[in-house]
Amino acid sequence: MSTPRGKMVNAFNPDSLAGLPAATQEAIRRRDRLLGPAYRLFYEEPVQVSRGLGTKLYDREGNEYLDAYNNVVPLGHCHPRVIEAVTRQMQTLCTHTRYIQDGILDYAEAMLPSFGGRIAAAGHMMFTCTGSEANDLAMRIARHVTGRRGIICTAEAYHGNSDLTASFSPSLGNRSPLGTWVRRIPAPDSYRHDPATLGRMMAAAVRAEAQELRRHGDGLAAFIADALFSSDGIFATPEVLRPVAEAVHAEGGLFVADEVQSGFARSGERFWGFQRHGIDPDIVTMGKPMGNGYPVAGIAIVADVLEGFGRDTRYFNTFGGNGVAMAAAQAVLDTIREEALIESVARVGAEITAGLRALAPRFEAIGDIRGAGLYIGVEMIRPDGSPDAAAAGRIVNGLRAARVLISATGPDSNVLKIRPPLVFSSADADRLLSTLETVLAATV
Amino acid sequence: MSTPRGKMVNAFNPDSLAGLPAATQEAIRRRDRLLGPAYRLFYEEPVQVSRGLGTKLYDREGNEYLDAYNNVVPLGHCHPRVIEAVTRQMQTLCTHTRYIQDGILDYAEAMLPSFGGRIAAAGHMMFTCTGSEANDLAMRIARHVTGRRGIICTAEAYHGNSDLTASFSPSLGNRSPLGTWVRRIPAPDSYRHDPATLGRMMAAAVRAEAQELRRHGDGLAAFIADALFSSDGIFATPEVLRPVAEAVHAEGGLFVADEVQSGFARSGERFWGFQRHGIDPDIVTMGKPMGNGYPVAGIAIVADVLEGFGRDTRYFNTFGGNGVAMAAAQAVLDTIREEALIESVARVGAEITAGLRALAPRFEAIGDIRGAGLYIGVEMIRPDGSPDAAAAGRIVNGLRAARVLISATGPDSNVLKIRPPLVFSSADADRLLSTLETVLAATV
Repeated sequence: MSTPRGKMVNAFNPDSLAGLPAATQEAIRRRDRLLGPAYRLFYEEPVQVSRGLGTKLYDREGNEYLDAYNNVVPLGHCHPRVIEAVTRQMQTLCTHTRYIQDGILDYAEAMLPSFGGRIAAAGHMMFTCTGSEANDLAMRIARHVTGRRGIICTAEAYHGNSDLTASFSPSLGNRSPLGTWVRRIPAPDSYRHDPATLGRMMAAAVRAEAQELRRHGDGLAAFIADALFSSDGIFATPEVLRPVAEAVHAEGGLFVADEVQSGFARSGERFWGFQRHGIDPDIVTMGKPMGNGYPVAGIAIVADVLEGFGRDTRYFNTFGGNGVAMAAAQAVLDTIREEALIESVARVGAEITAGLRALAPRFEAIGDIRGAGLYIGVEMIRPDGSPDAAAAGRIVNGLRAARVLISATGPDSNVLKIRPPLVFSSADADRLLSTLETVLAATV
Repeated sequence: MSTPRGKMVNAFNPDSLAGLPAATQEAIRRRDRLLGPAYRLFYEEPVQVSRGLGTKLYDREGNEYLDAYNNVVPLGHCHPRVIEAVTRQMQTLCTHTRYIQDGILDYAEAMLPSFGGRIAAAGHMMFTCTGSEANDLAMRIARHVTGRRGIICTAEAYHGNSDLTASFSPSLGNRSPLGTWVRRIPAPDSYRHDPATLGRMMAAAVRAEAQELRRHGDGLAAFIADALFSSDGIFATPEVLRPVAEAVHAEGGLFVADEVQSGFARSGERFWGFQRHGIDPDIVTMGKPMGNGYPVAGIAIVADVLEGFGRDTRYFNTFGGNGVAMAAAQAVLDTIREEALIESVARVGAEITAGLRALAPRFEAIGDIRGAGLYIGVEMIRPDGSPDAAAAGRIVNGLRAARVLISATGPDSNVLKIRPPLVFSSADADRLLSTLETVLAATV
């Protein structure tokens, strides 16, 4: 590339602009002029979307794309129940948390038992607009209650775009500096290590890094992880975080479960990803899928952990917890529960995984298939077993050319990332698998 | 108070719970249990709102309140054009900036010329969900481009709830620590100082504090101010920020104009508050009124200032700039322009200010009346001229009892804060003034 740019998996490379259709070139030039250089696009040929419905997206020419990637809309694009709830509440009232309103309380009441453990017994919810804000708030509280500032995350974690959360988001690349008080531990790579050893390995790393943080005068405020390790390459071995949580608590830190990716039934097993690990986190953060596209996010927290922060300062987020946000979130929660989406996620996720396993013997480049529910990673490798980012890139872009949308992830950019709306059907799974088979045959 | 809590002007004091109506007590207890101690409520008797329309709010019993405070809904509560735009776009598509979409580009194209100067000539817009995120991003960029980390703000500024922005939000109170790299300068207090000296005084303070920041190895990355100095007590002398901007640039820092409060025609003079000061900021941040309640915010930035950040890292905000957010923002912008709200803000603002000035001679406790357009401050004082927070509190709560909603602000909590939706009418202004007259007569 002529211009070195910060790393992003599956990003459009502006140097290949000239090869695109004229209308796309013009749209990208206009976009660069108006939005500037910090924005990225997906795919070698970026997609211009103009309409969505269920698991489908449509471009301006009316071409249909199967969306096997977007977790922002767990109920599918343009879900009528969410639209109706948002519209009705917009017609009634949209204001903030300094007035007493029922919607926010009803939602918190409905959600708190879902966390189990100490949060269900005596916990609170607080609301923000984005997952980044939720993680930022969680760490402000963790630092306040512990009086320390050190944070441990996984090697290729992503936790947000704020100044604080970007400081513990190594997946933003080498040009985005980590905090001096950030330490990283390996993700539970079940492909390269014995799954039975992963939890112990991570716990030992936590103890060592907590010691380092103490040695530097920072101490351990919190450990944070996404329970499906999305940007680390998608790892789904259950229970690995249990010894980690024990180590974190033994070191006096808080365990923050970042459920932006793994929450809201995504795993097809439990409502929350951390519950696959048998742990009782101090703070749970959530975002992306919570409002089916409406900006709503938040934290759930053990009451004792919040007490001092709540006394010494206040938290006000103008839009966080507004009536419309809560109406959207309530509609999403009710739909996930009433339509038993956790079961269909398990079923369709198993169909995709089984289909991938059936394909694997024919394609040596498929090194590993892993995940939970509708969060699936397919690791592409070279004959020597090393990561093959080029193959992953060809497959992601080959699928995009065939109008099936997925992406890639992992520190080596070589893991196919399949993460469709929760309402992905068996027919959608068949289309994904048959298109993938064609692309694999043509590509690797 | 039995429990010391972080300062907040016009906050409900939980110690007076027992004196409230039974239903309000129960709602507050439920709220404390579910949302915890970091949330605050307005007023001695918090308001339970259940419906809004235009400049009116309604409680569960159907009582009507005149809303002379909410700037989150500049077009008034439940504005049909915004609801229609949001609903239509929700039914079409709600997805993010890694696909090419027209709405975000059309909005940026419509907005960029409004900033004038270098941003209009060659600038970009970026989108977030909240003003806090906008200020956080602005400072990340400012630090990147300057290679320094020092930030100067005004004495009682508020710029956000993220870890970084809370660090330069002294109005959060003494229990919310400022960054070690934060310095404060006085706000332009036109009541206590000769207005002609304010700009020079602030510029001199900037130079002195920039020198201090250099001396501590931090250097000056940016100065940030709200052009109407809302939390500092509302000060509206024009042009005072011009020498400040010159000093900031001479010291090698960026000037960040925080337009969350003063932007979008609020002053009744110019679309942006900074334009009343004749300056050309490097970054403009905006939020609250931008989507009439829909969570949308953003920054506008000089192209050169963004270049390095955009190359070295990326910025992605899942909900920021989504199609629905842009539809809401476009509807707000179009309505402000087509309905010439800037003119009606000027007219109704002048009516309120004139009415207040007519009242003032009868009430010695009114020390000063100031502001611009529909952002008006009334400073309450004791006979010796010192700030009278108790009087301000009695008036705010007296008005609330009479079902007119305003609040208070300032380092001494003694400035009435009148900041209604932009669509506030002459009849609304009359009701505000006549109710205030009654409350003043009974109170001070």
